[in-house]
Amino acid sequence: MTYLTGIASAIGISHFSLCQSSDASTRSPRVVFSGIQPTGIPHLGNYLGALSNWVKLQKSSAPEDELLFSIVGWHALTLPQDPAALLAARRDMLAVILAIGIDPNRSIVFHQDHNPNHTELCWILNCITPMGKLRRMTTWKSRLAASRNAGSESEVDESLLNAGLFTYPVLQAADVLAYRATHVPVGEDQQQHLELTRDLADIFNRTFKAPSPMFPLPLYVSTKCAQAPSKRILSLKDPTSKMSKSSPDIQSRILLTDTAAHIKAKIRAAVTDSIQGITYDPVSRPGTSNLLTILAACSDSDVTEVARLYENKGHGHLKSDVADAVEELLKGPRAEFERIRHETQYLADVAARGAERARLRSEETLGEVRKRIGLA
Amino acid sequence: MTYLTGIASAIGISHFSLCQSSDASTRSPRVVFSGIQPTGIPHLGNYLGALSNWVKLQKSSAPEDELLFSIVGWHALTLPQDPAALLAARRDMLAVILAIGIDPNRSIVFHQDHNPNHTELCWILNCITPMGKLRRMTTWKSRLAASRNAGSESEVDESLLNAGLFTYPVLQAADVLAYRATHVPVGEDQQQHLELTRDLADIFNRTFKAPSPMFPLPLYVSTKCAQAPSKRILSLKDPTSKMSKSSPDIQSRILLTDTAAHIKAKIRAAVTDSIQGITYDPVSRPGTSNLLTILAACSDSDVTEVARLYENKGHGHLKSDVADAVEELLKGPRAEFERIRHETQYLADVAARGAERARLRSEETLGEVRKRIGLA
Repeated sequence: MTYLTGIASAIGISHFSLCQSSDASTRSPRVVFSGIQPTGIPHLGNYLGALSNWVKLQKSSAPEDELLFSIVGWHALTLPQDPAALLAARRDMLAVILAIGIDPNRSIVFHQDHNPNHTELCWILNCITPMGKLRRMTTWKSRLAASRNAGSESEVDESLLNAGLFTYPVLQAADVLAYRATHVPVGEDQQQHLELTRDLADIFNRTFKAPSPMFPLPLYVSTKCAQAPSKRILSLKDPTSKMSKSSPDIQSRILLTDTAAHIKAKIRAAVTDSIQGITYDPVSRPGTSNLLTILAACSDSDVTEVARLYENKGHGHLKSDVADAVEELLKGPRAEFERIRHETQYLADVAARGAERARLRSEETLGEVRKRIGLA
Repeated sequence: MTYLTGIASAIGISHFSLCQSSDASTRSPRVVFSGIQPTGIPHLGNYLGALSNWVKLQKSSAPEDELLFSIVGWHALTLPQDPAALLAARRDMLAVILAIGIDPNRSIVFHQDHNPNHTELCWILNCITPMGKLRRMTTWKSRLAASRNAGSESEVDESLLNAGLFTYPVLQAADVLAYRATHVPVGEDQQQHLELTRDLADIFNRTFKAPSPMFPLPLYVSTKCAQAPSKRILSLKDPTSKMSKSSPDIQSRILLTDTAAHIKAKIRAAVTDSIQGITYDPVSRPGTSNLLTILAACSDSDVTEVARLYENKGHGHLKSDVADAVEELLKGPRAEFERIRHETQYLADVAARGAERARLRSEETLGEVRKRIGLA
């Protein structure tokens, strides 16, 4: 799952671990940009792996830091979409973001497609993006493979590739650079896109020289750099693969909208093993270990310590506690989501205000960009 | 020279000759879109081959027809530009368009880069544009060759290709479709781009079905379809090639800003031949024939009839008459251009008003497009 395809890797970690040094690292305030595709109701993996970190990030930020969270509808168009489903998913994703605790007064929360500065900057960056750099990106191949349920990237039929999917790393660069963001948390598979963003920022700075460079080189912030291990939640039915919204078996994932009864039933039916006692051993006991990971993540505890508490207990006991912990974790956001998702006027107002703030903020950048390239 | 690189092929003819039948041909009113790159002061070839036809088009249009003339700055970025020169060229091109008689109250005259709806629609169209279609375009190869002074397209170093140049036919399609244009006059070398525009309109209409199709398929209007032969003006120094702004010999072209004395001197020094008498024979007497073509074009006469008037006269006589005719043709636009080009406030006002009208006009389209794809 790629950064912009799914929530799980949309943002990596709650604490910035700066993996690369750059001017940007010493800049203050920080400008953090993170985008997420409108993929519908998130599941537990999305929530623990990504969304809950947005909230921690908001809580731990310095007052002068700027935070921008964008629902990137234009990126969604790079694969075929049902228009009605896309419209609903965009609205639901906004409701989710608010429901989990992102404060639209503190952070700028907006729909990418409400701010035309992104596509304008994308065009300008297109004109300094060598085609060779885009050809070397591997993400469009994996997205195309995933969308076609191809087993491997080599099976992908490139005749299905459209210019949007091929150039979407440039739009991603524009998303980031439109705000002169200094910090971009992305999944590991998206590191190459952030490298491209840094390249394009650098090419622009060198091509259109001025007393001060136009763009900071944004920093890559990866889950791998975090001190805490990433919370990779696996399928409840096939614990060798990630929990995924695209799996045909809906018993394999817990959705943010699942009731307590649903949660209990799905956890009870989760695949484990017949070994006596509970131990954390992801390789030979993936199902059991996945339940321990979920339990530890729900209480922000260390998974090996949690495992020790259950070493003499059975799977029934563990599953019951996991179900309770998940219900405890999700019931607040779920209730808030159900409340907010029907407040269409409130959602429209938040979206409009976020768009206005994003436009104003990026207009500072675009005004300067146009001046430097000779278009203003 | 391609449609968007130079003026000569930016618009083909004064009368629409509809080469292809389509629903659009029977639509009324017509919506005509034509774009031109900001290439600096136009020369006589640009003026006779293209710009003067814009004026004729404006004069001959029905009151309900809409005319849009755009200076396409974003297209200029696909090749390296000096920012200060680009800024000046944009302003000068607007002054030229007004000086030759385009009425900004009748027609919508605007800078493409003042209307973000173009890049937004470009992104949306990118997402339905197969890469294979773009690879088959030959124009980016010839533009790259021309910009590098390569002798042929096979010499072109593709490592210099940027994503902007590769995808500019999609931005061109967006230019046209943002206004649901029905008629697009383009040079012959750009016919493949209009074919792509029609393809993309058709793909969009079929993908996002609605009671009425979103886009008319715009009609290709070519110089070859015109009843009048195209006025291809050749270099005064090398009458085997077109008059061109990129030729190092400034004696080879007459600029709109040349004085009467300059014009006289350049025509006097034009390459002809030592054959007695004047005849129109483009193959064996290209220089002499080029002078006859210019003289005929200046007076909107038939070139063979003009030739007959000179059959017993010498080159000196012909050159003197050509110089007088060119001066007569250019003196009005030249004086008007020199007057307008320094009225920076007036030019800024015209540009602002044109941009406003273009935005409003295209917003009707984009609002509907967003609704159909699920982004509104």
